[in-house]
This record gives sequence, structure tokens and C-alpha cells, in this order.
Amino acid sequence: MLGWDAAAMMPPGGAAVRGDQMAVLAGLSHGMLVASEAAEELDGAEAAPVDANPWRAENLRLMRHAHTRATALPVDLVEAQARANSACEKVWREARRSADFSLVRSHLAEVLRLVREQASALAPALGLSPYDALMDGYQRGIGAADVVPVFANYEVFLRAALPRVEEIQTRRPAPVRPQGPFPLEQQEKLCRMLSERVGLDYSHARLDRSAHPFCGGTQTDIRITTRYQEGDFAQALLGVLHETGHALYERGLPDAFCRQPVGDAAGMAVHESQSLIIEMQSCRSDAYLSWLGPQLQASFGGDPAPYAPQNLAWLWRHVERGFIRVDADEMTYPAHVILRFRLEQALIGGDLSVADLPGAWNEGFYALLGLTPPDDAQGCLQDIHWYDGGFGYFPSYTLGAMAAAQLMAAARRAVPGLDQALGQGDHSLLLGWLRAKVHGVGSLLGFNDLLRAATGKPLDPNDFEAHLTARYMS
Amino acid sequence: MLGWDAAAMMPPGGAAVRGDQMAVLAGLSHGMLVASEAAEELDGAEAAPVDANPWRAENLRLMRHAHTRATALPVDLVEAQARANSACEKVWREARRSADFSLVRSHLAEVLRLVREQASALAPALGLSPYDALMDGYQRGIGAADVVPVFANYEVFLRAALPRVEEIQTRRPAPVRPQGPFPLEQQEKLCRMLSERVGLDYSHARLDRSAHPFCGGTQTDIRITTRYQEGDFAQALLGVLHETGHALYERGLPDAFCRQPVGDAAGMAVHESQSLIIEMQSCRSDAYLSWLGPQLQASFGGDPAPYAPQNLAWLWRHVERGFIRVDADEMTYPAHVILRFRLEQALIGGDLSVADLPGAWNEGFYALLGLTPPDDAQGCLQDIHWYDGGFGYFPSYTLGAMAAAQLMAAARRAVPGLDQALGQGDHSLLLGWLRAKVHGVGSLLGFNDLLRAATGKPLDPNDFEAHLTARYMS
Repeated sequence: MLGWDAAAMMPPGGAAVRGDQMAVLAGLSHGMLVASEAAEELDGAEAAPVDANPWRAENLRLMRHAHTRATALPVDLVEAQARANSACEKVWREARRSADFSLVRSHLAEVLRLVREQASALAPALGLSPYDALMDGYQRGIGAADVVPVFANYEVFLRAALPRVEEIQTRRPAPVRPQGPFPLEQQEKLCRMLSERVGLDYSHARLDRSAHPFCGGTQTDIRITTRYQEGDFAQALLGVLHETGHALYERGLPDAFCRQPVGDAAGMAVHESQSLIIEMQSCRSDAYLSWLGPQLQASFGGDPAPYAPQNLAWLWRHVERGFIRVDADEMTYPAHVILRFRLEQALIGGDLSVADLPGAWNEGFYALLGLTPPDDAQGCLQDIHWYDGGFGYFPSYTLGAMAAAQLMAAARRAVPGLDQALGQGDHSLLLGWLRAKVHGVGSLLGFNDLLRAATGKPLDPNDFEAHLTARYMS
Repeated sequence: MLGWDAAAMMPPGGAAVRGDQMAVLAGLSHGMLVASEAAEELDGAEAAPVDANPWRAENLRLMRHAHTRATALPVDLVEAQARANSACEKVWREARRSADFSLVRSHLAEVLRLVREQASALAPALGLSPYDALMDGYQRGIGAADVVPVFANYEVFLRAALPRVEEIQTRRPAPVRPQGPFPLEQQEKLCRMLSERVGLDYSHARLDRSAHPFCGGTQTDIRITTRYQEGDFAQALLGVLHETGHALYERGLPDAFCRQPVGDAAGMAVHESQSLIIEMQSCRSDAYLSWLGPQLQASFGGDPAPYAPQNLAWLWRHVERGFIRVDADEMTYPAHVILRFRLEQALIGGDLSVADLPGAWNEGFYALLGLTPPDDAQGCLQDIHWYDGGFGYFPSYTLGAMAAAQLMAAARRAVPGLDQALGQGDHSLLLGWLRAKVHGVGSLLGFNDLLRAATGKPLDPNDFEAHLTARYMS
């Protein structure tokens, strides 16, 4: 709640004290987890016979897991990381602004040195490889060995598919761009109406504005945000639909284990699958666009041409190679993630030095997308993640996108009439299936086990590739 | 911040969990205060020579004071009070709605029984009488023995003054009421502009809406709220000016002791003096109204007659006997407080039983204001305070009003040109004096010592009476 407030409400003068407040709360929470009483209670609970209820049994395992992660790291290391990450992140902002990697190189080297120490300390405690121990901090139940073949498969697919899609796109007429201005209040009202129609209950949620859209709050009090531009409503609207997916996941978590580890969301990749199944899979489907177009026309008026469903599809389903991950379309986005995944494995494994990172980035980017970044600001400096110590997170984005496609395919098989309902603007059938198969499962299952239970198989890139083939190459 | 959010932002579905969140934080905070480590550290600090710096010395005394209050009560009693207060408050809502005291009588008796136990436990620990031990929880540095003669003095004044003012009011023409509607956004903009002009810096503050206006947040991040009615802008505006007074106090507390006991506000009565010195003393002064009238006229347009300074004075400085405390004017308001002060002393002292409360209320009300409440909803059921266990708080309202008059008189003596500045809408001279004499003093001094240092004497009802005489009888 304090994080939401800081991003959406707080006057600028509150920032310094807010940082202190959040640090105090984080310290209290960490202190409770590592206190000797917690260890004694865990030992006692584990000495008892395993609970026959799988939820309670898994809850205990997850408590132990959290305790192991929290206690595996020496306090000195945690503090050194906090200092190094904070110092590096500040310098990174300047380095990115001036596109000068050399400014931040030594800071990043120190951050990496400490992350490698962290990974080495976590690995034996968790029984995982050092890189998997980092990944596990964001998404339980999938490791590099699972991801490597999936990403290799996708690289092959992309190499053939991308030129074909580009060729198809050149043959069709340029789409008509909606002409603003679109008053912000009107956009906000529309975003609220559409997210409500998708299934977000505003007696348990708010929609506000912030510089970077996010979903925060708690299971019974969800806070989503977006940002508005007067000239283009699509950014805000698609952003709200994305955050609505996150919000519906939080709202659908099992009540019975609210605020228990097993009642939490299953991880970042699963969370991303839920935002993308709404934003990318359902809301950019032909069926939904056929309903949405007239809604937009009714809301904004003016020339109807931009709101024709086919035109919206061309506008919102356009593939284009580019340097910046956060601007990428759903087909090229995984290439950005694959590059980072390979580079961070090499950095953590000691096979790549920080000094060689810019060169390795540019080579890898060219190999995947056939482009060479004109400078490091559009290359290895573009994202904050590594510079604030976040290694092992990037794969979650693409695991989520692929899982979304796999879940959508399974939902279509399982639920007759799902697309007809979307064609009426009705998400209730999809949402019902997601509640049963994903939201209501909480953290009972790790990533691949959740997919197995919901779709009959672990992560399979073919469903995502089939989705892209159908959407962009048919 | 969670309290602000609950009142101003939270969707209704968040209420249940928010209650849990706030209870957990309160429990953590209480647990830290009563932990054996805290007692040991206090003992150690007190064993050292007294700090020569009076701020640090008083800070330690206040820490001990807080520790004594927190540890004087058995945990069983605290929990029994929480349960009894919560149960009674719920029933009180129904009792007030149906104007039926008998519904809540037994609940209130239980609340009172526990409050008397609380007072008896606190009294020896603090070296105060039981009633003063309760008062001390809201305002340090003044007790019933100081208040009794002040209130007796005011009762004598009121008996003579009230009929005179009523007679004067009947002789003047009826004021002209501004004709709305006044769009809410326009009112909000005006409230923001005027509070900023009074001195509130919105880089450290927000103004929002809530059912009951309040001032919350922290010293560097103040949150004030108000409520708007389309037909009448005065309620929102005067409410914002009141909360602005509270906000300026919080903003002006000494930075050097931020989040330390000695850096906190000096108590509820001092806080009320700071809201009332803005709302009642300066902003309803002839000088300020002569500036405000044209501002309102410029903002709302239409017939200028309602915005003439004399007309605003008649509208906003009107004395009228009534049953409801929160609707009372500044002259009759103390009568409401005097009645409650006497009744709660008798209840705590065991001289009045709960069964006899409605009768005692009605007799006392008639003796003070010459009216008999038509039912208990307009009598002893009107306020939540007693029913949620709040005894000893009511005097703060009138102590604050009287202190505001005393401080304003001292400021006028000390600061040449103060009223001329208010006549230009300029609060900087008043604010500068308040920062030096009240805000910046934090909790270094208790109520009467603060007044002594700022005005040369302890609380003196004559300044308040002189203010009323000048405003209403000249």
C-alpha cells in the first residue's frame, strides 16, 4: 500500500521519509522470518507427521523455502548488496542518459561479484545451481535446463517466421490511426468500464495514474494504475487490460489461504501469463476486437474507420524489430529475453566479464534480430534489472507469454463458446476457467506442475508459436 | 497512511483486511514499547547523568512516560477494553439511530467499568488522579484542577453574554446566503488555493475528500481531507482552513527530533488550538474577511452581495443555541464541553451511574443552555467518544479554543502589522510567530508551560472571553 501510494498519490516531499518507512517494514518482516522462534516452530512442524491436506503440507514446505532463502545469506552480504545495488542504480541512470557504459562498468562489476556470492550461498541451501537459485527467487518450479531448449526452439521458429510476417505486413494497406485528442477523463472512464467488463470488481479495486503502470495492493483491495496520453488512447487502454489480468489473478487467489505462502501467486512468470492472457491473448483476439471496435467508436465518435476491427488488429498486432525490449511486439519480445537469459547465465557462471558485456550484447542482438544497437543506451544499458542486482528475472517475461498461449489453447479446448463469448465482450467463460486452473491454485504448484495440471504438459513453445502463426501468418 | 487511505481512497471491499493490517501494526508498535529490551535501555539511559540538552532530557522523560502508560495496563484489560469498546460502539450506532439509550446502557456500563479500571491502573503509575490519568492520554500538562475554575469562569461569562449576543443578532438584517450550485471541482480548487495561501506547501501535502474531514500523514507528507456540498461552499472551505491549521502545526514540528517523542505535537488541545487559530481566529477576522470576500466573488461570480465582508461575518459568526456539539458556534460550543467534562468526571469518580446519565445530561444541558433535548439522540447519544471508551478527551476542544484566543492575542501584541497582513490575505507573520512559539517547540513543554512560554501565563479564559466580546458584542 505504501508502494502504491508512493507511485500514485504521494507528494514529492514525502519521498525521503517513505523510503525509511518501507525499509523499516521490510526489516521487521525479515527479522520475523529469521528469528530463532520461526526456526524452532518450523522444526517442530516438520517433526510432526506430514499433513494429509496437500495445501497445508505445501504451505509448510513454502514456509521452509522462504526461511531457507532468508537465512542462507549472511547479513553482511545482504547489506553490501543493498549498498552496491543502490549506488550502481544511481550511476546507471547517468550512464544510460549519456550512453556511456564505462561510467557504470566498475559498479556493475561489484554488483555482479556480490550476486555471484549470493547465488553461491543460495545454491547449496536450495539444492539448485547458482543461476537456478536466482531464478527461483522470482519463479519456483522451472530452471535453466527447462528453459534452454524452449528458447532454442523459439529461436529457430523466429528465424523463419519473422521475415515471413514482415513480408505479409508490407503487402497490406497502412492502418488508419485514430485522431485525438482523447480527453484523459474520457479515456479513464473507458478503461474503467472495459476492465470492469473483463471482470475487475471495483468494490475491491481502484484505477489510478502513475508514471509506470503496475498492479499492487492486496487480494481484497487491488490497486492498478496506468498513464494517459491525450493523442493516443491505446497505450493506456492496453496497459489497463494488462494490469487487469494481474489484478484478476490476485483477486482469484484462494481465500482459505489468504496471507499464507500457499495462498500467494505462484511466481512472476505465472503472474505475467495472467496479464498477457488478458492483454495479448483475449483482448487482441479477432473475436474481442469485433466487439471492442464499436465500443471505442461509441465512446470517441468521429471517423469510424480507425475502429474497424480489422484496422485495430493491424494497429495493435504489428511486428517490428527494434532495440528496446519494453516497446517490442509479442513476436520479437522473446528475442530480447533470450539474449538477456544467455548473457546473464554467462555472467553468473563466470564465462563473461562485465567489460565484455557491451560487445557480447551487440553480437547477440545481431544474431537474433539482425540489428546492431547504435549505442549502449539502446543496448545493454536499456534496462534497470542488472544494475539494481536483478538477475534471473528476465526469463519470466517470456515464460509468461508462452504460458499464456498454452493456457489459452487449453481453455479454448476445454470451454465451448469461449470465443463467441469474447465476441460479445464477455470474459466470464475464460475467467471461470482461469479461476479454476490458475488463480484458485495459489502457490500449490510450481510453474511446470501448474501448466501440467492445467494443460496436460509442461511449458511447450509450440502453443505460443502456433498462436503467432495463426495471428500473423494466416 | 493506512488510516488516510481507508478514509480517502480504499474501495469498500478492502475494509476487513485493512482493520487487520492496522491491528497488526499497532500490535508490533506496542510490542516494541513493552519489550524487556526497551525497559533495559530506558533504565540504562536514566542511570546516566541528566543530559544538559533540555530536548534530549525531555525526550528521555517522554519515552519513559510512554513506556509507563503502555506497561501500566495488564494485557487482559487492554484486550477486554478493545472487545467491549468495539461491541459498544456498534450498538451505539443503532441506539443513536433509534434514539433509544436503553439499547446501549449495559454496553456502556461495561465500557465504563473497564475505563475506571484503566484509570485506576494508570493513576499510581503516573502519579495523577484517575481522571487526570485519562486526560493525560490526550493532553499532557493540564489536569482537572486547572480546568474546573476555567470552565466555571466561562459559565458565568456565557450566562451574561449569550442573551446579549442573541439580542444584538435580532437587531441586524438577515445575511444574504450565496446561491449555488458551486461545482465541486471549483470549490476544491479554491480550497487548495486558499490553504496554500495560508501557508500549506503542496509539495509536502495533499487535499482529498472523505466523509469526515481530518488531517493525517506525516510531518513531510501531510494529508488533509474535506467534504463538499454543491449548495454550500462554506462547510468545505472552513473545514479545509481548520485542517490547514493542523497541517501547518505538523509541518512546523522540529526536524531535528522528527519521529522522536519530543518532536511530536504537544497534544490534542494544542493541536486544536492550531486548527482554531487559523479557522476561527485569523480566517474569520474582519481583516481576513475583507480580503477573502473579493476572492470568493472572483471565484464564483454572480450577485456580489453575499461576498461582502460584513455579510460573510454575519453568516460565519452567528451564535445560536443548539443540541448538537459539532454544529455549535464558538460561543456555545464550550457549554457542550463543560457539560461532558462534568459528567465524565462524575462517571469516572463513581458519583454518577450509567442508568442516570440521560437524566443528568438533560438537566445539565438545561442549566447551561436553557434547552432540553427532545430525545437522547440529540442528548447523551450524539457523540461516539464515551461509547468507544474515550473519556478525558472532550476538554481538549475547549482548551484548544481558549488557547487559540490566548495565542492570537499574544501574537497581535508581539507582531506589529499582523492584522494588516491578514487584510492582504497574508498569513506569513502569524505563521512565523506560531512556528517559533508553538510548532517548533514540539513536545518540549506541556500544555500550560507552552502557554506560559508563548503568552506569559497559563491558560486564561479571559482572552477567549475578550475575543468573543470584541467579535460578538461590539
